[in-house]
Amino acid sequence: MAAVSQHVPGHAHGAFASAADTDPAGLMQGAPVPAARQVRWDDGSMWRFPQQRWAFSHMRALVPTMNIPREGAVSALPAALHDDLDDVHLTTLDGRTMTWRESLAATYTDAILVLKDGVAVYERWFGVTTPATQHILFSVTKSFVGTIAELLIEEGRIDPDSKASAYVAELQGSGLGDATVRQILDMRTGLAFSEDYVAGQSGLSDVQRMSIASAWIPRPAGYDGPDGHFAFVASLGQNATHGGDFVYRTPNTSALQWIVERVGGAPLAAQIHARFWSGMGMERDAALAVDRQGTGFGGGGLMAGLRDIARFGEMLRRGGHWNGEQIVPAAVVERLFAGGDPAAFVACQYTGNLDGNYGSQWWHRAGGQMMAMGVHGQGIYIDRAAGVVIARLGSHPVASNRGNAAVTMPAYDALVSALV
Amino acid sequence: MAAVSQHVPGHAHGAFASAADTDPAGLMQGAPVPAARQVRWDDGSMWRFPQQRWAFSHMRALVPTMNIPREGAVSALPAALHDDLDDVHLTTLDGRTMTWRESLAATYTDAILVLKDGVAVYERWFGVTTPATQHILFSVTKSFVGTIAELLIEEGRIDPDSKASAYVAELQGSGLGDATVRQILDMRTGLAFSEDYVAGQSGLSDVQRMSIASAWIPRPAGYDGPDGHFAFVASLGQNATHGGDFVYRTPNTSALQWIVERVGGAPLAAQIHARFWSGMGMERDAALAVDRQGTGFGGGGLMAGLRDIARFGEMLRRGGHWNGEQIVPAAVVERLFAGGDPAAFVACQYTGNLDGNYGSQWWHRAGGQMMAMGVHGQGIYIDRAAGVVIARLGSHPVASNRGNAAVTMPAYDALVSALV
Repeated sequence: MAAVSQHVPGHAHGAFASAADTDPAGLMQGAPVPAARQVRWDDGSMWRFPQQRWAFSHMRALVPTMNIPREGAVSALPAALHDDLDDVHLTTLDGRTMTWRESLAATYTDAILVLKDGVAVYERWFGVTTPATQHILFSVTKSFVGTIAELLIEEGRIDPDSKASAYVAELQGSGLGDATVRQILDMRTGLAFSEDYVAGQSGLSDVQRMSIASAWIPRPAGYDGPDGHFAFVASLGQNATHGGDFVYRTPNTSALQWIVERVGGAPLAAQIHARFWSGMGMERDAALAVDRQGTGFGGGGLMAGLRDIARFGEMLRRGGHWNGEQIVPAAVVERLFAGGDPAAFVACQYTGNLDGNYGSQWWHRAGGQMMAMGVHGQGIYIDRAAGVVIARLGSHPVASNRGNAAVTMPAYDALVSALV
Repeated sequence: MAAVSQHVPGHAHGAFASAADTDPAGLMQGAPVPAARQVRWDDGSMWRFPQQRWAFSHMRALVPTMNIPREGAVSALPAALHDDLDDVHLTTLDGRTMTWRESLAATYTDAILVLKDGVAVYERWFGVTTPATQHILFSVTKSFVGTIAELLIEEGRIDPDSKASAYVAELQGSGLGDATVRQILDMRTGLAFSEDYVAGQSGLSDVQRMSIASAWIPRPAGYDGPDGHFAFVASLGQNATHGGDFVYRTPNTSALQWIVERVGGAPLAAQIHARFWSGMGMERDAALAVDRQGTGFGGGGLMAGLRDIARFGEMLRRGGHWNGEQIVPAAVVERLFAGGDPAAFVACQYTGNLDGNYGSQWWHRAGGQMMAMGVHGQGIYIDRAAGVVIARLGSHPVASNRGNAAVTMPAYDALVSALV
C-alpha cells in the first residue's frame, strides 16, 4: 500500500509526465538540496509524483527501518542475457501495441530481472536504482508474511481454523477477533476498512489514518488516535460476515503479522532474517519500516534488492530448495501455489486477472502463476510451467496495480511466450 | 555528540546501574513492545540510560538513514585470539585496580576488537551487538569527514588556508565565514556554540538546538528555527578570534562537511562510499543519519560494524594500503598522524590526554597514537609504534568521553604493553 492519496485519475497513460521526463536522478542533488529538488517525509513530498521516484529507492533515508542482515557467501545467479527480448511485441488490454522495452517505460519500471530456469536472461536498471538499492516493496511484503504464516501452520504452531483472538487476545472484540487465521490469510474478512488510495473530498481516508497511526506520514497536531500498526488494526470494527468474498485490506496483514510475531516469538524483521535472509545467500541486507514503537510494517514496509527478491521467487519455483538448503518445505510451497478460492475472487473484478484468486497473501492467475504484488509496480511473478521468475521494482504514478496490470499482464505473457 | 542532555553527574562509577544490570537484551521485546520496554524517538527515551544501550545498536530503527553499501569480496581479518588478555591488570587514573575484562564492563563496552600487526587478537560482543550490528559511531564520524577533507586538500581541490566562505558562500557573515579550512579542521575557531551535554536549568542547550534543527530529536510545536545541519551552522555567530585554542564544537564539522560536499560534488554518504566502503572489502553496509532534507550528520551520524571500523583503522596504520589498493595516499596518512598543535590543546585539560592534541578531526596522544572518538565510548585507536588498532563500541551512560578516559586510556596502555 502507499500512504497518501494521489488524487489521480484511474488511467496512467497520458495523465502523467513520462518515465524519461521524470527520471529521478536530478532529485536530492545539492549541498544543501534546493527546496524544489527535495524529497521529504515531513511535508509529504515523498508520496508525490515524481518525487516518489527517488523516494521508493531511498525509503531508509526517509523513515526509520529495522535492518535485516544478509549472511555468508552470496548465492549464484548465473546470467545469459538476451537483450533482443527488448523487441518482443505485445498488445495491452486497452489495445495499445508496444515492445517489451516500451512496456517498462510505460509502467515506470525502476528495475527488472527475468530468470528462465534459474538463469538471468534479462536485467535492466533505470533511474536511481543499482543492484545495491533497497527498494520499497510495498505489498510484496504481505507475501513474505503469508509465507511465514504457512510455515508456522506446517510446523503445527498455528491452527488456520482458530480465531485470531486465540493467538492475540487484544483482537478480542475488534473487527478481526472472530475471523479465522485462514480467513485473514485469504483476505476474506468483514473488516471495516477501505483500501481506497484516492481520498474523498473531506476527512481522512482509512489508508491515511493507518499511515498516520504508523508514522508512515506525520501525525496531525493533537493526534490522539492509535499508536502503531497493531493498535490500529485492533481499533477497527467489522461491517460484514467473515468468510465472504476476497476484499483486499492491508490491516488483515497487520493482524496476521501480530499472530506470526506472537507465535513465532520474534519481530517480523527477525523472522524474515531467520527464515530467508540468513540462509539464502542474499546479496544485500533487507530492511523493514517500523512504526514509532518499533513494530514492523508487515503490510508494506519491506525494502530489498531486486536480485534478492528474484532469489526468493526462484526458491519457491524450485519447490523451496535454494543455496543447498530446503528453505521452505515442499508441502508449504504447494500450499502457497494452491491459492485461494476463485469463486471468492470474481466480485473484485481485478483488471487483467478476472479469473484469478488470492490465497495466503499471494495473488494467482488461472494459469497457475503466483504473484506477490505491491503498489506502484513492485512484483515477484512465478510461472512454474514456463520456468520463469520475474522480479520488478517500479514507481508508477498510480498506486493501484490495476493501472499497471493492463500493460504488465500482457507484457509478461508475451515475454514468457518468447522464452518457452 | 549525543542529542539530549543526560542531566548526569560527571563521574560514571557508582552513579549508574552496572553494565550487567542494564543489559539491553530485554528491551524492545514483545508484540507489541510494552511501554516500559520501548525505546522511542518521539518521547526521547532513545537518549536515556539504559534505553540508549539498545538504541545505539539500532539507530536505523529510530531515525532516517542513508545506506552506504559494501561492495565485492570481504577483506580478510585473520584472527588468533588470546582470551588470556582478559586478565591484564590496570590501574585507572582515579586509582582503581581492575582487569582488562572488568574495564570493558566499567565502560559499558558494547563490542571491542583488537588488532596486533593486522591480526585479531581479541574480540568481544556484549548486549545486543553482533558482527552485523550497525552501531552509531557518534563523533568517530568526524574523523571520516576530516580524512576526506585531507584527501581533497592533497588532490588540490581544497586550499586549507582559504576561508570557508570561499567554498560555501552561505557561510559568509556567519560565525565561520572567515575561518580557514585548517582552523575548522583543527577546531580552532571562535564559533559561538557550547558543546555542553549537561543542559542548563532553563531553556535549550546549544546541543539540543542543533539536535532539533536536524530532527535528531523531535521539534517543539511551532518550531521556526533552522532546518537541517547546514542551516544550523550558518545560523551561528562568532564570539572569539579564529585560530586560538582548540575548543571542541560539533558544528565546525558541519561546516567542514558542507565544504567537502560542495567541493566533492556529492553527499557525504556517497563520498564515504566512494572513498572507503566501495574498495575496502567491508563486511557490512554502513549508514549515515540524515536530517529532514537528507543532509547527512557528519558531526556524529555514521553507523557501521565493529570490524569495518577496525579495517579503517588498520588501513591507516598500514600507511593507507588495504585490500590490494592504496585507499589513502601515504602523504595524507602522514598529515593525519602529524596531528595539531599541542600548545593549542593545553587549555582544554582533557582527562587522560593532557599533553595530547587535535588535528584534522582526529585526537592524538603525545606518544603518537591517533584516535577517533565518539561520545558514550565509540573509538578507533591506532598505535603505529606498537602495531595495535583497537575498535570499540559503547553505551556508557555519560556522553562525554572524559568520563570514560580515566579507565580507557590506562586500559589501552596496559593492553598494548601486554601485546608488545
